[in-house]
Amino acid sequence: MTDVTGLQTPALIVERERLDANIARMEQRCRDLGVRLRPHVKTAKSAEIGGRTPSAVAHGITVSTVKEAEYFGAHAFTDQLYAVTVVPSRLPRLAALRRRGVQVRLAVDSEAAVTAVAEFGAREGVTFDVLLEVDSGEHRSGLSPDDDELARLAERLDRAAATRFAGVFTHAGHGYHCRTAAELRAVAEQERAAVVAAAERIGARGVECAITSVGSTPTATHAEHLSGVSEVRAGVYVFGDVFQASLGTCRLDDVAASVLTAVIGHQRQLGRLVIDAGALALSKDRSTAALGPERDAGYGLVCDVDLRPLPGARVAAVYQEHGLVEIEGGVDFGAFPLGHLLRVLPNHACITAAAYDRYRVVHDRTVEATWGRVNEWT
Amino acid sequence: MTDVTGLQTPALIVERERLDANIARMEQRCRDLGVRLRPHVKTAKSAEIGGRTPSAVAHGITVSTVKEAEYFGAHAFTDQLYAVTVVPSRLPRLAALRRRGVQVRLAVDSEAAVTAVAEFGAREGVTFDVLLEVDSGEHRSGLSPDDDELARLAERLDRAAATRFAGVFTHAGHGYHCRTAAELRAVAEQERAAVVAAAERIGARGVECAITSVGSTPTATHAEHLSGVSEVRAGVYVFGDVFQASLGTCRLDDVAASVLTAVIGHQRQLGRLVIDAGALALSKDRSTAALGPERDAGYGLVCDVDLRPLPGARVAAVYQEHGLVEIEGGVDFGAFPLGHLLRVLPNHACITAAAYDRYRVVHDRTVEATWGRVNEWT
Repeated sequence: MTDVTGLQTPALIVERERLDANIARMEQRCRDLGVRLRPHVKTAKSAEIGGRTPSAVAHGITVSTVKEAEYFGAHAFTDQLYAVTVVPSRLPRLAALRRRGVQVRLAVDSEAAVTAVAEFGAREGVTFDVLLEVDSGEHRSGLSPDDDELARLAERLDRAAATRFAGVFTHAGHGYHCRTAAELRAVAEQERAAVVAAAERIGARGVECAITSVGSTPTATHAEHLSGVSEVRAGVYVFGDVFQASLGTCRLDDVAASVLTAVIGHQRQLGRLVIDAGALALSKDRSTAALGPERDAGYGLVCDVDLRPLPGARVAAVYQEHGLVEIEGGVDFGAFPLGHLLRVLPNHACITAAAYDRYRVVHDRTVEATWGRVNEWT
Repeated sequence: MTDVTGLQTPALIVERERLDANIARMEQRCRDLGVRLRPHVKTAKSAEIGGRTPSAVAHGITVSTVKEAEYFGAHAFTDQLYAVTVVPSRLPRLAALRRRGVQVRLAVDSEAAVTAVAEFGAREGVTFDVLLEVDSGEHRSGLSPDDDELARLAERLDRAAATRFAGVFTHAGHGYHCRTAAELRAVAEQERAAVVAAAERIGARGVECAITSVGSTPTATHAEHLSGVSEVRAGVYVFGDVFQASLGTCRLDDVAASVLTAVIGHQRQLGRLVIDAGALALSKDRSTAALGPERDAGYGLVCDVDLRPLPGARVAAVYQEHGLVEIEGGVDFGAFPLGHLLRVLPNHACITAAAYDRYRVVHDRTVEATWGRVNEWT
């Protein structure tokens, strides 16, 4: 057992107790809402964290890449929704997963994709369960809930020999632009109403819509009810981050992922600390810039090694391997000698975590374990 | 030999011919300037690309992390400058490298670091060659060239039993804020003058300053002369990128690194293509935003599969695994069917490349090889 201060920096740390509390909170929230939780593993991309998530084990998971599907499939997570619209080039790997007993459901939002999946499945003797993606207002991907195409594609999927129509799903990512709980409640309702309307439209053609799936951490947290919804996909809640705290989906004290970093210099002229967490270790995510100058966290909020936030401290600038820390009211350099350890709460945990190939799991300052993570695509 | 169209997406591609031309151009440039080139391998982080760089093989390399030092050391690149100020916790790994015959020079800019290196070296019986970092105007790290501390630390390094004073180095990263060649010439002169002044100040105390090292791709490209400089560190020139093209250090046709991506959907309402290269595959680097709306490349410029830029096409928005492509004048969806392949030129190649663990090396549309890359820190 190593003390956290014995780790090389930069390192990605997970606070085990916070993680487990975040997981338990969302499990309870979905029980209260009366919906299944199908955790989106794209945030942590870790079999160990999946294994600590009751719903992931009991119901299944959501994945964002074929590589995640393969990795989690190999770790016995055999019930999956691959929630990014599929292209023909990915079908051989997905078929291989099906043959290994991994039930990986596919997503489509076009005639061309339906045709590709149906033809490939028929040719290769594989049957795929397929969901249609609905656009509930984010305008990233998916069909509008009032588009006639929805029911037409559902019918085609239902009838084709090599496809089964499994349901509809949507992601109200525009919730990330909300600034109040009331706005988030409205977006959550939009998300719910979109899949319910889509399912009704499809049902009216006599095609059963078994799954009605919505989700994001902000809408799952703020929804008033999820009547007509069968499952929620949420992901970043396992860690939380500074931006999530601004949306009221966690408190800063809940943020379970942080970057351990060392002071590597003093920029005395400008009164800044130089740390060894830069653009690669923190990412260039600037989502908190949208919160205005008062709440802008720069490239991350700075805490001491025990995760106590340093008032007014943020990473003001990043270079590839350098970060510059500013502290409101000025830096007392004597308090931050060379090698002094700090921890940075990320703006956006999904993006920051992607720079690391493993997690250092910490409880009470002790490194209890190292957990894996799957990056890349191929 | 696979055709590039047979690759899974997203994938990081290196065009071998462009890479070799970029390498040859900087080699020639440094010969013309009469200085050695010590390539900064932090961009490509690849032993194979280091091996194609004559100066890396003949003179040595610059590294930005201990992990790079270890990886390149294991690939017989035994002459290194680790150009990030060192902290005590890294010294055991660096000493192990020294013992394996890797001459890894260290960087410091403080009394505390000098003391730490000298004491560690004495205790462990290792001698380190150490450079002092000079701040030539970027105000990221380093001592001002007119700071008395410089000569004092050089003397201490020269006298201590376990350290040798090796020279001074600087990085004029503020060149990235320049918008004209004239501005870049001025910053290059500032960079040169800073190390020359620092070396003179140190020499006046009777301490020899063997290395005077400057560098960045923009200043190396635009410098009028480098009189008094012994070596240049440049890195991103091997690939170039959209931001480098804006600084006149390459043309868009020289950019050797790109992300192969597939069309995974049509956002017909808003007239956008959905691609499978998002925030992780491209990074959230928005450096080209500083160029103004006319030249802002969004999250990358979009080309066809043969790297011909699509006029007015850029990645306008990214989500974790989705990108949205806008094309000036509107998208002809028939020309971009599901699965259609595109290639995205990155804003900042160093950051984009960090999402991948290997390079697909392409020439004439054929994948000739796979080259390695070292990510992470520990």
